[in-house]
Amino acid sequence: MAGYAFDEDTEVTLVGGAGPRRLYSCHLSDRWAIVGGRPNGGYLMALTARALAASLPHPDPLAVTAHFLASPQSGPARIEVEQARVGRSISTATARLEAGGRDVLRVLASFGDLAARTGRTHVTARPPELPPPDECASRGPTVGGWEMGFAKRFDTRIDPATAGMFQGQPTGRSEVRGWIRFADGRDADPLALIMFADSLPPTAYNLGVRTWVPTLELTAYVRARPAPGWLRISMVTRNLLDGQLEEDIEVWDSRDRLVLQARQLAWILPG
Amino acid sequence: MAGYAFDEDTEVTLVGGAGPRRLYSCHLSDRWAIVGGRPNGGYLMALTARALAASLPHPDPLAVTAHFLASPQSGPARIEVEQARVGRSISTATARLEAGGRDVLRVLASFGDLAARTGRTHVTARPPELPPPDECASRGPTVGGWEMGFAKRFDTRIDPATAGMFQGQPTGRSEVRGWIRFADGRDADPLALIMFADSLPPTAYNLGVRTWVPTLELTAYVRARPAPGWLRISMVTRNLLDGQLEEDIEVWDSRDRLVLQARQLAWILPG
Repeated sequence: MAGYAFDEDTEVTLVGGAGPRRLYSCHLSDRWAIVGGRPNGGYLMALTARALAASLPHPDPLAVTAHFLASPQSGPARIEVEQARVGRSISTATARLEAGGRDVLRVLASFGDLAARTGRTHVTARPPELPPPDECASRGPTVGGWEMGFAKRFDTRIDPATAGMFQGQPTGRSEVRGWIRFADGRDADPLALIMFADSLPPTAYNLGVRTWVPTLELTAYVRARPAPGWLRISMVTRNLLDGQLEEDIEVWDSRDRLVLQARQLAWILPG
Repeated sequence: MAGYAFDEDTEVTLVGGAGPRRLYSCHLSDRWAIVGGRPNGGYLMALTARALAASLPHPDPLAVTAHFLASPQSGPARIEVEQARVGRSISTATARLEAGGRDVLRVLASFGDLAARTGRTHVTARPPELPPPDECASRGPTVGGWEMGFAKRFDTRIDPATAGMFQGQPTGRSEVRGWIRFADGRDADPLALIMFADSLPPTAYNLGVRTWVPTLELTAYVRARPAPGWLRISMVTRNLLDGQLEEDIEVWDSRDRLVLQARQLAWILPG
């Protein structure tokens, strides 16, 4: 899918190894930069997942966990992949993203084939109720005076009930939800969903927090391949404890399927 | 804490390596066996986390992810630990549990010091409402005619509203909740909480499922060191899709603190 920013900026090139251990080179693009000019964590995770996908026989990321060790600048990077087990329906591997001589990300992931799964369905989860996209607030590309390349990659429409964080009027409720899609018209797929898991500002900004809220860990379950069109996304925190919080993310597709469940553990840096 | 089954059965002995790479020997006890005589996955995960704790300068598991590759018999095993990063407040490592010549478990985890954390608190999560333990249903040590050593290790009192799965009368709602503590009087600590994350039968048993529901992945966040006494535990599934389901687990301590948030991805094996 040449021409789409996400595909161009997650390209990986095999430069060493074969079979169970492989080494890829890649480039951390500045087009996905957040505050401070550093690439967004979800972007780094999706890029690493693309190297995993290239190394495993199963097409879809089912469960992907990343622990964030350092926040790199854009530039050249490499990804080491090691298979743990390749089974008939599931394969599991670890990966390590290194940039600027530092360990950036460790990933543990299992891949499978979402289209091949059959069995019972029983769903009580419901998509978030949102006003239509045209009645939501567009998310601007700046945060606190910083220009964010990352935000320009998406068309994001925030439910006015949760948009206070963007308008200097925190709502007092640690949640944010809205509509989201790529700005360049690319439809989401399972790899892209991993990045969408980290595409909203921290829920704590709606509690008046204005400092950095780095992610320690993010686990994403891709539950189904998303249908084309708008996605609905919600992120909620129920337990901010001693400066540490979880963020629960759900993404729903245009056919009302829960396509992504993710959770991250983060903490609020002292101001 | 000699004399307690959990401590005895999670002992690890350093047998090789030093510094960033270490090798431990251990024994998979048959006291934590589930159906089929195989050790429970949460027990294997807690055992592996104990080797991680022995290898890292920080005392508490903050975020621990395991991918389950094989279901071993009880017997000798070994655990390889590799440090990824040791920072001032967080350390991250990977681990591999091997038994019977097979990779059993891959783990990626970050440790820190829960007692050292300071910062803002804002909690909207609420503990499950439960009848008192004496008005709940004791969970028996058998499932479908199988004797389960694992269930004997706990004193578990299931909310009658969700206890149908134990009485051959599935409730039709994919949830189960109740009180839980170790049967031998040991209080829970962060390592034990990791095992409590996998201590209830699958929610799908309340939908009438009777087959095996293996876990692909489990991620546990330990949010606080638990106070002594009874714990409250809930496990809920909101999205069973094509035979695959998430199970969301929360554990609350006697001081009404959310001490564990965990989620696992599992699937229902065809009967």
